[in-house]
Amino acid sequence: MPTFAAPDLQRLTEEVFHAVGFPRQEAATIADIMVQANLAGHDSHGVIHIPGYVERIRSGHVRPGAAVETVHETSTTAVLDGHFTMGHVAASKAMQLAISKAREHAIAAVGVHNLNHIGRIGAYPAMAAEAGMGAIVTASAGGAGKLVTPFLGMQPRLATNPIAMAFPNPAGAPLLLDMATSAAAAGKIRLMLNRGHETGTGWIINKDGLPTRDPADFYAGGMALPLGGDQGHKGYGLAVMVEVLSGILARTGTAAKDRQDLNNGTFMIVIDIAAFLPLEQFHAEMAELVDYLHDTLPAPGQEGVLVPGEYEARNEAARRRDGIPVEDETWRQICDTVEELGIASALPTALA
Amino acid sequence: MPTFAAPDLQRLTEEVFHAVGFPRQEAATIADIMVQANLAGHDSHGVIHIPGYVERIRSGHVRPGAAVETVHETSTTAVLDGHFTMGHVAASKAMQLAISKAREHAIAAVGVHNLNHIGRIGAYPAMAAEAGMGAIVTASAGGAGKLVTPFLGMQPRLATNPIAMAFPNPAGAPLLLDMATSAAAAGKIRLMLNRGHETGTGWIINKDGLPTRDPADFYAGGMALPLGGDQGHKGYGLAVMVEVLSGILARTGTAAKDRQDLNNGTFMIVIDIAAFLPLEQFHAEMAELVDYLHDTLPAPGQEGVLVPGEYEARNEAARRRDGIPVEDETWRQICDTVEELGIASALPTALA
Repeated sequence: MPTFAAPDLQRLTEEVFHAVGFPRQEAATIADIMVQANLAGHDSHGVIHIPGYVERIRSGHVRPGAAVETVHETSTTAVLDGHFTMGHVAASKAMQLAISKAREHAIAAVGVHNLNHIGRIGAYPAMAAEAGMGAIVTASAGGAGKLVTPFLGMQPRLATNPIAMAFPNPAGAPLLLDMATSAAAAGKIRLMLNRGHETGTGWIINKDGLPTRDPADFYAGGMALPLGGDQGHKGYGLAVMVEVLSGILARTGTAAKDRQDLNNGTFMIVIDIAAFLPLEQFHAEMAELVDYLHDTLPAPGQEGVLVPGEYEARNEAARRRDGIPVEDETWRQICDTVEELGIASALPTALA
Repeated sequence: MPTFAAPDLQRLTEEVFHAVGFPRQEAATIADIMVQANLAGHDSHGVIHIPGYVERIRSGHVRPGAAVETVHETSTTAVLDGHFTMGHVAASKAMQLAISKAREHAIAAVGVHNLNHIGRIGAYPAMAAEAGMGAIVTASAGGAGKLVTPFLGMQPRLATNPIAMAFPNPAGAPLLLDMATSAAAAGKIRLMLNRGHETGTGWIINKDGLPTRDPADFYAGGMALPLGGDQGHKGYGLAVMVEVLSGILARTGTAAKDRQDLNNGTFMIVIDIAAFLPLEQFHAEMAELVDYLHDTLPAPGQEGVLVPGEYEARNEAARRRDGIPVEDETWRQICDTVEELGIASALPTALA
C-alpha cells in the first residue's frame, strides 16, 4: 500500500474540500483534523472519509460554507446551529468560541447541532489543551447510528456516544482521552471481521441477545454492548449522560428520535486552568503525575504503562517520520473522487 | 438483623455528630447524606461509617465545625479548603456555592480539598439536579486509598476515582450516574469475599499480575483493574482525568503523593439548564428519552432496562416503606459508639 507524507495528504484534502465549495480556511481546518486522525493512528477517522464526505456534499446533506449561527448565548455559554456545514468546521468554531469565553470567564460550555460528522472527537479538546486549558467534549448522533443496546437490553438504541477530555501536558502532546462509551467503537468490530479475528469479550451480543465473539454476528442483527462487561451499567450510564449533554442541551435531539442522516450533536466544556492555579504549577504537577504513572510495574507480557494520548502521540511521531500508509482500495477511491473533481494535479506522489 | 425507619436513623446520626462537636445544621447534613446512601441501597456508604467517623474525630483527623475557606475565587469558579471538616459538610458547601454561581453565570466549577471522606459521591450532583441544574462531580483520594493498577500495569497506584453526574428527571428521582472508574468499587470485592462468591470477570488481578476471580487474591497483594476489561484504557483514562480535575485543579495533590490519611479531593461542574433551553422543554425531552430507554427489549433472563439512578430510586421507595436493615454487627458497633458518647437515649427502637 502507498505511503504519503502528512503535509502532502493535508494539501490534497484541503484542495478537495476547497474544490467542493469550502472557503480555503475551512478546507484547511477539515484537512488538518482528518490527517491528524491518520497521524494518531486512527485511520478509521482520516482520509478514508474523503469519498464519502464528497458524496454527502453532492447529495446535499452537507452544505459547504454554511454559516455557523449562534442561536442563544450568554457570557459563558452558547448554542450554535451548524446549518449542516461539515462537522469539523462547526465543531472547531464551537471550540474556539468556548476557549475564548473560558479565557474571559474561567469556564464555558458550548453546544452545537446540525453539523454532520465531526471526525475524531479528540481533536476538539486537544485544541483547548493547546491553548493552556482543559476540556470535556461529548458527541451523540441525534437518533442516527444506533448500534449499542442499553445495559440489560437487546435492542440497538444508542450510538457509540463518545467522550473526550484533554489537558496540557508539558512533556509534549496533550493528555488526551478519546473513548466510545460502548465497549468497542464500530470501526474496531469491522477491523476484527476484516482480519478474521474474534472480538474481545463483552464487545457484542448476537440477534438473540446472547454473548458472542464472532464479529459476523454483529452484522447479522447483533449489536454492541456498553463499556464495562458485567459492570455495563457504567458505560450505559455515560452514554445516557452524553445523550443529555449533546442531545438535549446542545439541541440536537436524542436517540429517541429516528433519523437516517448523521447529525452529530456536540457539547463542550472548557476550563481555564489559571482560574485554579498558575499554569506553571499545573505543568509541574502534571509532569509529576505522568512520571508516577510511567513508573508503574508492567503486567506480565506488557512493555509498560502509558498515559492517555501517548499511544497516539507515538504514532504521530512515527508517521511524521515515515509517512502515512493508505490501503490500496482506499487510495483508489480517493483518486477516483479527486479525478471526478477535475483536480488530479493535486494528487501527491507516494513516498513508497 | 434489626430494621429502622429512615427518619429514626437520621435523627440518631444527627445526634451523634452534634454530640462530637458539629453545629446542629452540619450534623443534619451529614446525617441526611449518610442515611440517603442506605436508602439508595448503598449500605457501604451509610450508617456503617458512624463508628469509624467518630474514631477519626477523636483521633483529630476530622475537625468538627472547621470553617470551609475560600482560597481563590472568580465569578464562576472557586477553590475551597475544607480544613479537615467532614467531607459531607465541605462537599455540600462546595456544591451549594457551585449551584449559586451557575444560577448567576450559567456554568460554574468549584474544587475543594482537605475534607476527608465525602461518602456517596452521587449525593452532590443530585443536589444540583434538585435545583434544576446538571452536574458532573469527580473525587480522588490525594494519594491515599491506592487499590487500582494503571492499565497494562501491575501496581496499585490509583484510588477508585469515581465520577458522578446528575440531571433533573421530571418522572421522579434525578437521572443519576455514580460510578467508580475501576471495574468494581472496593466494597463490592469485599462483599464477594464475605459471601464466598467469585468476583466478576476483569475486576481484579493477583499479586503476580495474573487474572483471577478469587476475591481473596485481592487481599493477598492483588489489585483492582480499571473499568473496561480488554478496553481498560478507558477506565484508566477516566481515572487519570479525575486525578487532574480533583487532584490538581482542586488543589488536593495527585496519587503521585503518598499519604495515609484519607483526603478526598472533589471537583464539581454545575450547568444551568435554562442557559440552553427552557426547563419545561428539557423536562419534556428527558421524559421522552427515559420512555425510549425503558421501552428497550430486555436481554434473555432480564426484567427490563432501567435509566441511571432508577435502581437506587426503587431501593429508596422500598426502604422508606419497609425500613432500613442494619446488620447485627454494624448495629452493635453503632450502639457502642452511641453509649460511649453518653447519648444512649438517642437510640431508636427497631421496626422489626
